[in-house]
Amino acid sequence: MKQNNIITLTTDFGLSDPFVGIMKGVMLGINPSVKFIDISHLIEPQNIIEAYYTLKFSYKYFPSGTIHMAVVDPGVGSERRPILIESKDYFFIGPDNGIFSFIFENNPSVNVIELTEKKFFLPPISQTFHGRDIFASVAGWLSSDVKPYEFGIPINNPVILKLPEPAIEKGKISGEVIHIDRFGNLITNISETQFHSFISERDGKVRIKIKNFIIPSICKSYSDAVGPKPSSIFNSWGLLEIFVRNGDAGKKLKIKKGNKVVIGL
Amino acid sequence: MKQNNIITLTTDFGLSDPFVGIMKGVMLGINPSVKFIDISHLIEPQNIIEAYYTLKFSYKYFPSGTIHMAVVDPGVGSERRPILIESKDYFFIGPDNGIFSFIFENNPSVNVIELTEKKFFLPPISQTFHGRDIFASVAGWLSSDVKPYEFGIPINNPVILKLPEPAIEKGKISGEVIHIDRFGNLITNISETQFHSFISERDGKVRIKIKNFIIPSICKSYSDAVGPKPSSIFNSWGLLEIFVRNGDAGKKLKIKKGNKVVIGL
Amino acid sequence: MKQNNIITLTTDFGLSDPFVGIMKGVMLGINPSVKFIDISHLIEPQNIIEAYYTLKFSYKYFPSGTIHMAVVDPGVGSERRPILIESKDYFFIGPDNGIFSFIFENNPSVNVIELTEKKFFLPPISQTFHGRDIFASVAGWLSSDVKPYEFGIPINNPVILKLPEPAIEKGKISGEVIHIDRFGNLITNISETQFHSFISERDGKVRIKIKNFIIPSICKSYSDAVGPKPSSIFNSWGLLEIFVRNGDAGKKLKIKKGNKVVIGL
Repeated sequence: MKQNNIITLTTDFGLSDPFVGIMKGVMLGINPSVKFIDISHLIEPQNIIEAYYTLKFSYKYFPSGTIHMAVVDPGVGSERRPILIESKDYFFIGPDNGIFSFIFENNPSVNVIELTEKKFFLPPISQTFHGRDIFASVAGWLSSDVKPYEFGIPINNPVILKLPEPAIEKGKISGEVIHIDRFGNLITNISETQFHSFISERDGKVRIKIKNFIIPSICKSYSDAVGPKPSSIFNSWGLLEIFVRNGDAGKKLKIKKGNKVVIGL
Repeated sequence: MKQNNIITLTTDFGLSDPFVGIMKGVMLGINPSVKFIDISHLIEPQNIIEAYYTLKFSYKYFPSGTIHMAVVDPGVGSERRPILIESKDYFFIGPDNGIFSFIFENNPSVNVIELTEKKFFLPPISQTFHGRDIFASVAGWLSSDVKPYEFGIPINNPVILKLPEPAIEKGKISGEVIHIDRFGNLITNISETQFHSFISERDGKVRIKIKNFIIPSICKSYSDAVGPKPSSIFNSWGLLEIFVRNGDAGKKLKIKKGNKVVIGL
Repeated sequence: MKQNNIITLTTDFGLSDPFVGIMKGVMLGINPSVKFIDISHLIEPQNIIEAYYTLKFSYKYFPSGTIHMAVVDPGVGSERRPILIESKDYFFIGPDNGIFSFIFENNPSVNVIELTEKKFFLPPISQTFHGRDIFASVAGWLSSDVKPYEFGIPINNPVILKLPEPAIEKGKISGEVIHIDRFGNLITNISETQFHSFISERDGKVRIKIKNFIIPSICKSYSDAVGPKPSSIFNSWGLLEIFVRNGDAGKKLKIKKGNKVVIGL
């Protein structure tokens, strides 16, 4: 695959400090034609799982050859490896802490390189800001047509996150809330595909339980829902979402990430 | 008019979730040379009026041919129409909920198209994220030189917001606060033009009343104001603004959007 | 030096209001090929010192010829001068209030121009938004190859901020916290260079005091630190930083900008 000149950024650096601007400056110094797309810089500090989900549900919407850089890096300066991943359609650059591990699911031919070639780093290498000194610098060079294998040595044991999967048992699916978006919508880890394989064995009636609330059906659109009661829908990521029409479900129902959601009889 | 390759974005999607990045990825996949300018992604969720004012006071500062996309869309998935507007100098893409209705004021020759041509959408069309599946996709194709009429059918009844206009009565103008900016400045809907047509009939003395505060004059610059008392000025949008010098008027005076402002004797 | 087409922006305009988008629109109208990098728009309103530090530690990471625009401008509309600075490698555009004064430290050959040529402004000039009417317009023209001397008249008395420097006395260095980043790390004004000139006269043992906390050593990386106690490191800007491993030192230690930090025996 050939890289394009698009680099996306996903970090926990926030928008007040100049850290993101500094990384972009470093990349522009290497490749002036690069184009940046910010995915999010408001990942909760050091929350690798939040970064994982953020990227997992967005990386595919970019053109083939896009370089996805992610820096949520509690292990900066320790033994954790810096890596570059080449999948069928994309490149990923960041710390080897599982942040990109969705790419290994159903994707056996992924190429992982540990970044060891210091000539592509920005000296002197600090112990606190590899986003600037290693990842931005490597992303700049990769976008300038340096080949993946030139950056280091292949590895076959990248860190893989173990994230909660819904349990499909007789008569029910048990999942959990994995993300609450700006609107207060509660996004669960139960996919439409999982749901349909479950429901096809049944008579079409559902009963979704979250905390003490029972939701009796799945809407086709937000506007199908009535009143201030919680409703559900399959959202744009193909996941079951609990919402309150024109309201903030997270606040109204006092639900947090990790809360259980059960679909049953 | 010929489109240029600039697309502005105004949404209530926030800056934490990947929604904005996803829309940009979709557009880059259609037209790699497009250039994005974020106007705001922090519109209060589902607040069409806030988005209306945000765009109304900014769209003219962009080069002719700019595509302004706005997605504040409480009716997503319902019967509300997706539209494209072509005015003398700009294109607008978003839901037909009044968000762009400033463009119809004093602008009779505006062309409105309902987006019906599904070949310019991104399948499968979700019921929850038309920003990605319809608006971003159409904006990408429009920037790639597809003509407005190719996207659908002309309509002549777009939704028009009815927003509060100042009342000019004998001896006074009654308006209200329509926006509070980051500095806490209180922006009213009373324009300098309206004020001058009022004041020319009078002796030049004014008395501006907001809550229990009386402001006796209109400053020429922020630095004309003295002390911690509220002052007033005509701001960069040509609107009367109440401010506290080097302070946050909204917080100090405990004033909110919708508060009345009266200019009188 | 030749300008490039990169313009960075550092402001206190926030991310909700359309002010930043408007400035970018003005610049694109003058030079469609310009490329924007946001350094921060979340500078505390009117906090010139915060903007000074933000730019001081980031401007060097951009390619030679970059135009750094900064608008934190409590004196807008008053007698304060608008200026353009040409240093060996960069251009700076903004109000003459000290925001760029780091560039005069050890940099005797800097060229400062007061912006007086109204033909490069955007008429009519408001009294409240010179970011749009003067600074963005001048930045657009400068990026289009207008020469610095064409914008106005040279001046030799730009405003210089006097910022707290660490006091190096016998047996101790006394500095202070100048910035708290998104992670809650406390960045001090004590540089690694100052520290080493101090420590070389001593036996290598240190004792860092902040509030009632004593930190007995300086870590090589965040992961060297143990437990919930405050630790210290020289950070990516070469400054002493106090941190709590995987925690928010600012909140945990209840420390604010301006708190004293003393390195001693």
